[in-house]
This record gives sequence, structure tokens and C-alpha cells, in this order.
Amino acid sequence: MAQSPFEWIDEQARARRRAGLVRTLRPRPADSALLDLAGNDYLGLARHPEVTEAAARAARTWGGGATGSRLVSGSTELHAELERELAGFCGFESALVFSSGYAANLAAVTTLAPHGSLIVSDAGNHASLIDGCRLARGTTQVVAHADPDAVRKALHTRTGPALVVSDTVFSVDGDAAPLADLAAACREFGAALVTDDAHGLGVLGDGGRGALWAAGLAGAPDVVTTVTLSKSLGSQGGAVLGPAHVIDHLVNAARTFIFDTGLAPASAGAALAALRLLRREPERAARARAVATALYERLTAAGLEAVRPHAAVVSVRAPSPEQALRWAADCREAGLAVGCFRPPSVPDGISRLRLTARADLTDGQLDRAVRVIIEARR
Amino acid sequence: MAQSPFEWIDEQARARRRAGLVRTLRPRPADSALLDLAGNDYLGLARHPEVTEAAARAARTWGGGATGSRLVSGSTELHAELERELAGFCGFESALVFSSGYAANLAAVTTLAPHGSLIVSDAGNHASLIDGCRLARGTTQVVAHADPDAVRKALHTRTGPALVVSDTVFSVDGDAAPLADLAAACREFGAALVTDDAHGLGVLGDGGRGALWAAGLAGAPDVVTTVTLSKSLGSQGGAVLGPAHVIDHLVNAARTFIFDTGLAPASAGAALAALRLLRREPERAARARAVATALYERLTAAGLEAVRPHAAVVSVRAPSPEQALRWAADCREAGLAVGCFRPPSVPDGISRLRLTARADLTDGQLDRAVRVIIEARR
Repeated sequence: MAQSPFEWIDEQARARRRAGLVRTLRPRPADSALLDLAGNDYLGLARHPEVTEAAARAARTWGGGATGSRLVSGSTELHAELERELAGFCGFESALVFSSGYAANLAAVTTLAPHGSLIVSDAGNHASLIDGCRLARGTTQVVAHADPDAVRKALHTRTGPALVVSDTVFSVDGDAAPLADLAAACREFGAALVTDDAHGLGVLGDGGRGALWAAGLAGAPDVVTTVTLSKSLGSQGGAVLGPAHVIDHLVNAARTFIFDTGLAPASAGAALAALRLLRREPERAARARAVATALYERLTAAGLEAVRPHAAVVSVRAPSPEQALRWAADCREAGLAVGCFRPPSVPDGISRLRLTARADLTDGQLDRAVRVIIEARR
Repeated sequence: MAQSPFEWIDEQARARRRAGLVRTLRPRPADSALLDLAGNDYLGLARHPEVTEAAARAARTWGGGATGSRLVSGSTELHAELERELAGFCGFESALVFSSGYAANLAAVTTLAPHGSLIVSDAGNHASLIDGCRLARGTTQVVAHADPDAVRKALHTRTGPALVVSDTVFSVDGDAAPLADLAAACREFGAALVTDDAHGLGVLGDGGRGALWAAGLAGAPDVVTTVTLSKSLGSQGGAVLGPAHVIDHLVNAARTFIFDTGLAPASAGAALAALRLLRREPERAARARAVATALYERLTAAGLEAVRPHAAVVSVRAPSPEQALRWAADCREAGLAVGCFRPPSVPDGISRLRLTARADLTDGQLDRAVRVIIEARR
């Protein structure tokens, strides 16, 4: 037998250790005492009894899994109900549910960017949109972050179908895309706008109807958006929302839809229950935004450098990867879980603490979080 | 505003209608009277009360969703338990659970095929492996289906790391890869073997431990396999199994792991319960194989053309796409759900009925299925 085929992996592992960039999993118990400002459960619905009971009921009624591709045996009436209500809530004609937001993004970009098309992609886009661009048959041009003029310049070169691809709220810094300007640029050139509203759904727009609703773009014939069911809706999965003929196209052409098992009934049930809860309690969306603003204002007042939040993500700059790691570890030591983004997950090399402003944080928890972060600062 | 950016979609839709290749979703009710030979619930566990109760319990204990990436807030002790037991059952050192089998395949191929590497990929591989090859930085060479000599010839050209990528049981025809030969070819050239055991887990090997176990390759230092939790285990999700240092590499480098929300607790719980059930009732695996063989023998005895099954998938040839569609529709009319694979989902242009041999089919149900398929033949 020749040498191990994985020796190069060990070299990479050594380099990661030397650079202090080793990632390790830290499984959490069910009853953690940590105050969680790291997860994306923006509305605090993941553990809401209505959501978890709906998940339990769906598993009992429909089974532990969907049993097959959505086109074979994996479409239940529960999936159809979720798709109808999700489209209605967000103001789009149709919706198609996927097993993850990642799969939804791969589907939206690859099916809407055929051979000969141009994809104009924001430099700050999420990994799943980037992978969608790489898988698509069209040609990708990456443009400066949140820059409609750069988009216009790129669209000048188009010869076939074109689409502009952007997060609505960028996952690392929590800043917002200039959606109205991007849509205007698209319309000047007859291009489609494809957005990822993973961090907008449930937080932005009237009662959390999302960034497209907030921008007056929901349901437009030239706009498609993806959302996740795993953040504000406290479940798992993703969806693509858009005009009915575009969704039909995805049913016929999206590889991550056709060749993937349908979303588990429990996750579909949990997401549907969360959506109904949000419809009944629309103030959860405003509360998530208010908590984010309060976090930002109190941390910057204490001298920390942060990005003004547009939704529920607050990004606080750390001096170095090592200091970010120690800062986050000290917060954890003091009972507070925060996200820590370091290279290579951040394209610009800037390390951050990433805080998520949950709608269900009490004022006391907010005080405690701010105090811990400031005391542990580096 | 310029013309609609989606006009090209409508042209494609018209072409699909003309060719009779339109796909439509058919949501099923919870209490369908159809006998299901279409889904991939090979062991009949998706609706087993132990599995659905475990899903319900996990949702109540851990929440409707994992709340974040596995590296941030999305790893629970339940995920860790599932990973330990899955690795142990299949005979591998480590396992890493993903939100879908599709995501697991993208991860395995992209992280193990760096720039400068060679990927040798079977022409019959699943869409998710193909997309993994397209996303990977290495160069892909597609070789003839199930042909170790073609693999050897391709490996002759390698200059950097190399991996051979293959389904263990091919999803369309249910035929098996020549795993022992492929592993021998890999070892001659110091290449890694990466397989997708989606259709082998729960069906092949001692008590369903999978195709790698059956081939004596489980736990080998140069072998990595993926599995799904959505077929024999009646849930949702996927996993990569392999040597611990390879799994650590995935934790650090796999984009569909790092940038995706963790698998929902309900799905992790359902899969774990199904795995324990299978360990307790290992005869389920042999029964699935026996049902497949019986289906094959009785259908071919009646003059139908089918592929001898290696696992639980039985592929029956149809004369044309139109006739396949009508055949499947007539079966459904008679109370039997069967899969119908037509272009463009089948690379070779041959349309088939695809039957799955569930371990929980009674002899009476098997008789009925055979009778319906033969009577509805075209």
C-alpha cells in the first residue's frame, strides 16, 4: 500500500494549530445556563412550546422523515400548507421549501443563471450564494460590497439573461443591502434581483415580513428571494419565494430540490407554527430590532467599535483573531455565549464578536450581556 | 422597465410541456391508502412509533431547531451521541452529521479534493457527488460506470492527491459499485476512496451496517463514506464517516458544515432511535434485500426487464418516457405508488419504474404490488 492519501490533511492541520485557528465542536447540554447571544433564534421561538409541540405533532402525524424527494414521495400536505402561508406572509406569489437555506440558495442561483447569463454578486455574500454562483452555468462578476453603481457597471456588459445576487442583511456585520437601489439598477438593465433574506425574515418589514416587504419589492415580477426556516422561525430548512412561473421552473430544474429528500415533517410543522405565532404577535419583530439597537448603543457608548445594526445582528470589532477568541472565551466563562468570527470565515480578515439580539431577552438579560462584554473586553 | 428578466424561463416551460416532461408536486395526505413502493423508507421506520416519539421528545427537549451553525450554537449533546453511535455501528472512527445527504456529499468531495488534486468520478454518480466535483478545486475525470480499470487508467495521470468517488449502490438502477476492486485500484496509486452509501446503510452488511462493512472496508485509513439519515433511518440529514483526522478536517474546512444551520434536534433524535432499533432488530436489513429479490424474480418471470437488485432498489425498464409515465399513473390508479424516472433525471435517457423494497412489506402486499405492476404494464 502506498503512503496515506490524507497526509496533506495533516500538514494543513499543523498549520491551523500554529496559527491558532483550529475549530472544535462544543456540544451543549439541553439545560445550559448560558445566556445565548450567539445563535440565530432571533425571535426566541425555537423553544416556544407552540413550536416544539407542532414539531412533535408533525412527527407523529407524518413520520420522522419525508421518505423521498419532494417529487416522488416527499411532498406532504403539511409542506404545501407551509409554502402557501410563507408566500402569503412575505407577499410573494409562490414558495418552495428546501431541506436547508444552503440548498435553497444553490437552487435559486443555479436555476436562474443558465449558460450565457451574467451573475453580479456582492463581495460580502454568504458562502451558499457564492457556491451557487460557482455551480451555475452563467458567468459571475463579483462587485464591491453594497454598491449599486458597481452593479450598474457590471450589468453594462451583459449579453444574455442577468441576475444580481445579494444578501439583504449580511451575516457577518449585520449591515443591510441597498435593496431599492439594487432593484432600480436591475430594472434599468432588465436583470432579475435574487436576494437571501435569511436575516431579514421575522425581523424586518411589517411584523417581520422581511426585507423585500420593507423595501416595497415583495411580489415584484422580477424579484426572487430565499429565506431560512432555521433562524427567526426556530426550525430547519429554507425556501425560495417568487413569481409562480419561477417557482415552477425550480420544481423542474433545481438539483438540490429534485435530488434531495424533502424537509422532515417535524421541521415543516415547527416552521409553520412559528410563522403563525409571528402573525399573531407581530411585535416580536420590532422587539428584536430594538434589542439590537440597544446593544449597539450601549456597547459603542462604552468605547467599543461596532456596526450600526439594520436587523438583529450586532457586529463588534476585535483587535485580532487571538483577542477575539479570548474575548469570546471570557464572555462564556462569565455565562454569556457570543459568536466569534475569525479568518477564514471572514473574507476581510477582520475578527469580530457577533451578537444576536433575541426578541425574548429581558431588560435584565440585556444589562447583564452588555456588562459582561464590556468587562471582558480586550 | 425593460422586458421581464424571466422570459427565457417561459420558453423552457413551453418546451417541457411539448415534450411531456413537466414535473408537478403532488402533496400526499397523512393517511394515504396507497401502497408505497416509491419512497426510500427501506426499513419501514419513518412511521415507527419509537422513531416518531424520539423525534417528538427531541423537539421538546432541545427545541424546534438547532439555532445556529454546528460551530456556534448548533451542536447539542444529541448530535454528538448520534455521531458516536453512527460511527460505531458502521465501523468507522468518526462521523459528522449534516443537514442533508446532499450537503454531506458536497462537503466530502470539496474538502478532500484541493487545488491540484484529481477526482475520478463514476459516470453514474448521484447529482450531489457531481455537484461536489464541480465545486471542488481539484480536476474531475469522469470514468465509465462501475469500471475499476477505467479508474486505474485515470489514476495513472495523477500528480497530486487523488480520490475516487462512487455511489455504493446507484440510485437509479440499484446496482452495486465494485467496492473491493475500486479500493484495490485506489491503493495501487495511493488514492483515497470516497463513497456515498445512501442506499447501502440499513440494507447491506451485517444487520445493515452498510456496503463498506460488507466489503471489509469500514474503518480503513484511506476510505471515507457518506450516508443519509433520510432513507433507512426514516429521518432527515446526512453524515460523513471516516478516520478522525479526516473528520476534523471537515469540521475546519467544509463550507456546507460551517455555513449551514445544524440538523434539527427532532431529526437527530429520530435517526438515533432508528439506528438503535436496527441494532436490536438486525433482521430488517435481510428482509429488505429478500423483498427486493422477490420483486425482481417475479417481475422478470412475468417477462419484464429489470436490473438484478444489490440492495433494496429494483429498476424496471419502460419502453419510453410517455409509457413510463402512464405505467406509473395506472399503478397509482390501482393503489400502488412507484417511482418513475425519466429524462432529464436519468443520464442515459432510459425511462424506468423504480421500486423500493420495504422491509415491512407483508407477503400479501408484495403479491398485490407484483400483480398491479404486471397488469398495468405497457
